Amino acid sequence: MNKSLNSLKEIFEQYLESHRFKKAPAALYEPNNYILDLGGKRLRPTLVLMACDLFGGVIEKALPAALTIEFFHSFSLIHDDIIDEAEIRRGQPTVHKKYNTNDAILSGDVLLIYAYKYLTTYDASLQKQLITDLTETAIEVCEGQSMDTSFESRNDVLEAEYIEMIRLKTAVLLAASLRMGAIIGGAGKEETDLLYAYGENLGVAFQIQDDILDTFGGDLVGKQIGGDILQNKKTLLLIRAQEMSKKNNDTSLSTWLNKSQFNSKEKINAVKQLFDQYEVLKYAEAKRDSYVQKAITALRSINQPAEPLEALIDALVMRTY
Amino acid sequence: MNKSLNSLKEIFEQYLESHRFKKAPAALYEPNNYILDLGGKRLRPTLVLMACDLFGGVIEKALPAALTIEFFHSFSLIHDDIIDEAEIRRGQPTVHKKYNTNDAILSGDVLLIYAYKYLTTYDASLQKQLITDLTETAIEVCEGQSMDTSFESRNDVLEAEYIEMIRLKTAVLLAASLRMGAIIGGAGKEETDLLYAYGENLGVAFQIQDDILDTFGGDLVGKQIGGDILQNKKTLLLIRAQEMSKKNNDTSLSTWLNKSQFNSKEKINAVKQLFDQYEVLKYAEAKRDSYVQKAITALRSINQPAEPLEALIDALVMRTY
Repeated sequence: MNKSLNSLKEIFEQYLESHRFKKAPAALYEPNNYILDLGGKRLRPTLVLMACDLFGGVIEKALPAALTIEFFHSFSLIHDDIIDEAEIRRGQPTVHKKYNTNDAILSGDVLLIYAYKYLTTYDASLQKQLITDLTETAIEVCEGQSMDTSFESRNDVLEAEYIEMIRLKTAVLLAASLRMGAIIGGAGKEETDLLYAYGENLGVAFQIQDDILDTFGGDLVGKQIGGDILQNKKTLLLIRAQEMSKKNNDTSLSTWLNKSQFNSKEKINAVKQLFDQYEVLKYAEAKRDSYVQKAITALRSINQPAEPLEALIDALVMRTY
Repeated sequence: MNKSLNSLKEIFEQYLESHRFKKAPAALYEPNNYILDLGGKRLRPTLVLMACDLFGGVIEKALPAALTIEFFHSFSLIHDDIIDEAEIRRGQPTVHKKYNTNDAILSGDVLLIYAYKYLTTYDASLQKQLITDLTETAIEVCEGQSMDTSFESRNDVLEAEYIEMIRLKTAVLLAASLRMGAIIGGAGKEETDLLYAYGENLGVAFQIQDDILDTFGGDLVGKQIGGDILQNKKTLLLIRAQEMSKKNNDTSLSTWLNKSQFNSKEKINAVKQLFDQYEVLKYAEAKRDSYVQKAITALRSINQPAEPLEALIDALVMRTY
């Protein structure tokens, strides 16, 4: 019990390696091997294994569900990258750039179906729970992605809508990963719900931190700072600044948002100055910490020592992992 | 037992009507109501109900599975229309034309997930069978679509590859619809397999007839004749003509296939003349009839009177339905 994150990740990597797609047609399956080979933290499948382990379950029994979660996550990345016109993922071309959009659509589709396929290996009663879980979660993730897309053309996104969007788009999959692992590990309903709550709040905190780092990350992150500002992305920072500007009858932020021609550096600096003026960093950090606190409370209410999951909060939110 | 096709279709239509999407976000769910409202024969869900009825099952019990099949079919139409750049379906704009490609991708995704959702309403043991069935079939449909796409850039497609493609892309879903209904209706393994074989062969015959009608349909079909010829679509007719041309060292067909500039009418006439010369219509009709014969044999081997399913062969293949 309480195996380390890294040892569980390693177990998953080996399982994944032995479940690469070897079937024809290549145009359908190669893009899936490509995205799975891009690597990454394997956070979600590792959460499945950690949750199973937490309740003394046999890790091997949770491996198909861990694969399900990784396949589902990769499917959503492939389709989201098409929708967001993203060209790079983990330093490599996105699937639709490496191959083409048609193959990316269809490869994503079949990957989603394979996510279900691995759950059919469980006995009937367990399968029913896991498939219901995956299905409800998958619907929420699609709803979150749809909300995110619709926010692009809106300038009146409320904080509550934003929190709901990141809950759906990001948090519920982390939570469901833990719930699936817990169910397989034999946890009771109450423990499973608490673990779900931990994952959900952790996910929201994680996403708020993502917003913070994009603008204030400095050397902490390896990517261009201010990308969100340039795209008018409806982050918690921007939403808070819009709200404060409105209260103060200050139109300078909306002037910047409506400019179609601008110097990038100038816009980033001007918007960051407004962020400073309205203390949005402090606000976002407090918000983030309130979700971290909820995650800790939920985790500690479970009658199990869960050091790796408690350590994960800091690691994930502070991005040391 | 042996309720008519039309009365079962009517029962399904009412069920579908009461299961339209009413949820937000509208951008995600409206496109799905749109494609479901385009109507059509509802062949696949009706097959689910017919098969259940054939074995004396309660029709109402098969309705969620019928919805699953209709949702799955509609999901595949939405994504295929993007891939094929189709602009019109049933006389109306395709989903990605009516809305946009991003919404069409995501709406299709969630529709596939809802297809699974309706199977989670069955008890654990039945659900396990149905979900395994849907999953295997869905994988095959994706493989068929991928093969179809890859045929576009090939000039050496073999007849066997073509038959395998239409089996995967079209036939297995008809077959699976029947199998699901039979399972819900309480049929035994042998009967279920025979019904599956009926559906699979019927589906192949149906698709060959589709090829025939596109070129030789005349007034039978309401669409432009010769569309397949203009696109060099790898139909059974073209594949047979290519094979015969090769045998006869006749390069006239490949000359037409390689022309990038041509008068449409001229190309259609020239290719049709070659089709006549090599008697490809007769060949395709014989092929079609051999699959019809296999479908009849399978159906008659089931120890059940199945008039509506027998009548369906003529109706479907001859397109009176």
